[in-house]
Amino acid sequence: MTSYVERLAHRSREVGSYVCVGLDPPGDTPIGEVADRNRRLIAATAPYAACFKPNLAFYEQFGIPGLRALEETLQAIPDGIPVIADAKRGDMGNTAAAYARALFEVWGFDAATVNPFQGQDAVQPFLDYEDRGVYLLCRTSNPGSATIQNATLAAGEPLYERLAAEMPTWSANVGLVVGATAPAELARVRELAPRATLLVPGVGAQGGDPAEVVAATKAEYGLMVVNASRSIANAPDPGGAARELRDALNAPAP
Amino acid sequence: MTSYVERLAHRSREVGSYVCVGLDPPGDTPIGEVADRNRRLIAATAPYAACFKPNLAFYEQFGIPGLRALEETLQAIPDGIPVIADAKRGDMGNTAAAYARALFEVWGFDAATVNPFQGQDAVQPFLDYEDRGVYLLCRTSNPGSATIQNATLAAGEPLYERLAAEMPTWSANVGLVVGATAPAELARVRELAPRATLLVPGVGAQGGDPAEVVAATKAEYGLMVVNASRSIANAPDPGGAARELRDALNAPAP
Repeated sequence: MTSYVERLAHRSREVGSYVCVGLDPPGDTPIGEVADRNRRLIAATAPYAACFKPNLAFYEQFGIPGLRALEETLQAIPDGIPVIADAKRGDMGNTAAAYARALFEVWGFDAATVNPFQGQDAVQPFLDYEDRGVYLLCRTSNPGSATIQNATLAAGEPLYERLAAEMPTWSANVGLVVGATAPAELARVRELAPRATLLVPGVGAQGGDPAEVVAATKAEYGLMVVNASRSIANAPDPGGAARELRDALNAPAP
Repeated sequence: MTSYVERLAHRSREVGSYVCVGLDPPGDTPIGEVADRNRRLIAATAPYAACFKPNLAFYEQFGIPGLRALEETLQAIPDGIPVIADAKRGDMGNTAAAYARALFEVWGFDAATVNPFQGQDAVQPFLDYEDRGVYLLCRTSNPGSATIQNATLAAGEPLYERLAAEMPTWSANVGLVVGATAPAELARVRELAPRATLLVPGVGAQGGDPAEVVAATKAEYGLMVVNASRSIANAPDPGGAARELRDALNAPAP
């Protein structure tokens, strides 16, 4: 049984890439075109993709037909490229177990994003799938995330720092979601979680800088991917946009 | 346009009940029996139900056929009884908007549970549906929830207290999820959020005491419901179990 990080590292080395390609069909896409849009996007970007990441919200917004389109989308992803379910699920006990079953057994995802707000026992049913990756939200890139994630604890540190240090001790398959828009915080997370695999959204449409992300995360294949969704999918040439992001992430530090 | 709290209060008064009946089919239910199980459960418990609450995990664990069973389940709920999507979704920006569209427009739920870990702007797309209820997780009833929710802030209070005071200021349709298993914390939340509608899981299978919940929440129709799932659904007589819980919640304080 290979671990998720091993599979991701293998694929990343194969294509020399840290790029995670988001598969997020906009709400105004006619539902009959969603799967075709994704098939074209996958074909164009796969040569530069370390992994793919559909966000389930963009399929659920179409109801059950959207989930049929997700099925078709997953079938179009070539073998050997890990697929992350961006689902941000989180619940407790047998409910969390049902979500984990849905994502890892029914849908067959290699990894999933999970919300840690209910703590370790709520996350455990996901972690029990030892060959899957579990990316726990740590410090996200939106303004409001500061209310909870940056709340200053009695010991003086922000909550996300405690989470970055503690959550990877729960299991070897814990990864972290940390936004690209605050490079200093990204560097701090890397310092506290030196061997956790990181999923970094926030470059492209949200403005994070690829070179800063690489420096802050001490980038190493398998231990970091940078997600881009709209900036690739909406580019006139999505394959070219994915290649450019791959190259920007591989460029030597200035 | 009536608010969710007005609709819930109306229904609660009509049947004299604080009972929220969970519709959570176990994973070993043959998928062909899920909708029938729920139809029987709804028929037996509706006379005592202030609202119903399917947890989406228990449908998603069956894949797309599970969501078809959820469709059939929703069709079986009599008009005038509010239905809460226990979905604990949470994401940012246009992703949160897609989840809100799925729950409130595609599925047509009256209310939903939402995870506040990413803060106010991430919750806002749900709050924008002013006639729907948005129950934000505040202090859940599982052991691990203490790691984040009970983290002591620099100002000395636990995080959940700050959330209980702050989140209801975001919008009139904010409700809170607070577990029944820690009555002192439930009372503290009610003190900090005197007019927020509360969804209280944790009686029945998880051991919370109905009389303590009523006292701690200063129960008033529309501003509190107590969820029970397994303790009703697995009872030899689910209707009787729902009636007993209704009566226990209406009993005068000892």
